[in-house]
Amino acid sequence: MNLADTNLADTTRAWIARVEAKLDAVLPAADQPPRGLHEAMRYAVLGGGKRIRPLLVYATGLSLGAPVTRLDAPAAAIELMHAFSLVHDDLPAMDDDDLRRGRPTTHKAFDEATAILAADAMQPLAFNVLAADADLQVADATRLALIRLLADACGSLGMTGGQSIDLSSEGQQLNAQQLEHMYKLKTGCLLEASVLAGAHVAAADAATMAKLRRYIDNLGLAFQIRDDILDIEGATEVIGKQQGADIQRDKATWPALFGIDAAKQKSRELLHTALHEIESLGPAAEPLREIADYMVSRRL
Amino acid sequence: MNLADTNLADTTRAWIARVEAKLDAVLPAADQPPRGLHEAMRYAVLGGGKRIRPLLVYATGLSLGAPVTRLDAPAAAIELMHAFSLVHDDLPAMDDDDLRRGRPTTHKAFDEATAILAADAMQPLAFNVLAADADLQVADATRLALIRLLADACGSLGMTGGQSIDLSSEGQQLNAQQLEHMYKLKTGCLLEASVLAGAHVAAADAATMAKLRRYIDNLGLAFQIRDDILDIEGATEVIGKQQGADIQRDKATWPALFGIDAAKQKSRELLHTALHEIESLGPAAEPLREIADYMVSRRL
Repeated sequence: MNLADTNLADTTRAWIARVEAKLDAVLPAADQPPRGLHEAMRYAVLGGGKRIRPLLVYATGLSLGAPVTRLDAPAAAIELMHAFSLVHDDLPAMDDDDLRRGRPTTHKAFDEATAILAADAMQPLAFNVLAADADLQVADATRLALIRLLADACGSLGMTGGQSIDLSSEGQQLNAQQLEHMYKLKTGCLLEASVLAGAHVAAADAATMAKLRRYIDNLGLAFQIRDDILDIEGATEVIGKQQGADIQRDKATWPALFGIDAAKQKSRELLHTALHEIESLGPAAEPLREIADYMVSRRL
Repeated sequence: MNLADTNLADTTRAWIARVEAKLDAVLPAADQPPRGLHEAMRYAVLGGGKRIRPLLVYATGLSLGAPVTRLDAPAAAIELMHAFSLVHDDLPAMDDDDLRRGRPTTHKAFDEATAILAADAMQPLAFNVLAADADLQVADATRLALIRLLADACGSLGMTGGQSIDLSSEGQQLNAQQLEHMYKLKTGCLLEASVLAGAHVAAADAATMAKLRRYIDNLGLAFQIRDDILDIEGATEVIGKQQGADIQRDKATWPALFGIDAAKQKSRELLHTALHEIESLGPAAEPLREIADYMVSRRL
């Protein structure tokens, strides 16, 4: 599959449709008890979103020759972990956000206890998908590698640790290195896991894995800086959350530290480096290039 | 290993020491950043507790001939999931408890955001232990079976679903069947997973698994009823949480429904049935018998 054969928007739409079909299939039905809990899980997971992490799984796996049917399960598992983190990050005790993707956050649409539990239940579901999904036709050792990858990316030395640092850094002046470290944990680890999951399913060799790791490390930071820029420049109706929410909370961000022009420049440089890292993967890796452009040029 | 060879208290102490050593080893050090998060994780996991689930892993595994060194990882993984659920259940939005095991609950000792995140990080850690622990010398297929077992026990159709039903049933009159269903999900599923994890490590056959499932289904309900009786009869200093907390919240419990004498009688009958289910496992299964007595006769 080559993105050059078709329109990027069509391709991403098709991949998003695939992962959403898998998510719909693995999530318990809304009328299965306990209903409130399952409704909340489906509300949080199936209510839209950019699906960047699944797109990275598909782009990587297909660039390296994996069958697309084997990519649905890791894409869904990673998106479940992302959705879990969003629900908890939005809670009153954390970022206290009322809006997400233009809709009430899960604890607003349901209640706080239901939101906490709905997200809690997404974690075992994600690991179960990797351990048991029938379409994920890979060796047991590969399933275990995927589980370790996801667990490392989401634990206290990954995404959850990043959210902890983010909260404790409010009102503090982080330097660039501390900020990059926070970004890396909070967002970068799961983005990296998305790319490496696609690579594991494709049975990529160690050299390719290393290139992909450098690709996503650069791209991940560019993506996060883009997010911060959109938080300043975007209007609420476009990005679906309150504009300037980070600045209101006095959160450390790249534009806050260096100004918006320097942030845009940095984002472009990182994209350039990311693309350079995968040059040797040849024309087959076109999906990885197009997704990179998409992630850094997006307007929402 | 036969509990008849030694004193039950010595045996349980030795098993508790084993699982606590493994938990200490797999938890990040308190001085590893993010420090607050890791301190909270260690506070919540290493701050005592009956360790009933690890005891069930050891009792089952050793009854069926598994090497004890292979039981530490599943015992620790299951206890991490139990600890995660306690931290979230104690939150203000849930049971709003200030005391647990005679100490401030995690959100009281730290803060709410840290407690939420500390528990969130225990889930990936638990799955990682099952996927990667070097002392767990079993086939990849067995690791995956353990992961599925834990994920099923803790998801929306298990422990987390049980907590959801428990919260939504406050102030409602459940009948015995609804109450048993809630108990089964909230507590029974993870107890069953503990026994079956020991059985998986010991490579037990399907007939043995079926016996063990009936054993723990009966024992689990007896254990939960015992918990409810202690909530009424126990003093705060003994059980480490406010006495009568369930009744204050108008929670559905067995003693509330049938009276305390009927509850005690039911608990004894369930223990008897549990022991009957494993009669055919012979003298080697003595640890399972002693643990059963311990779980139902305990005073805290």
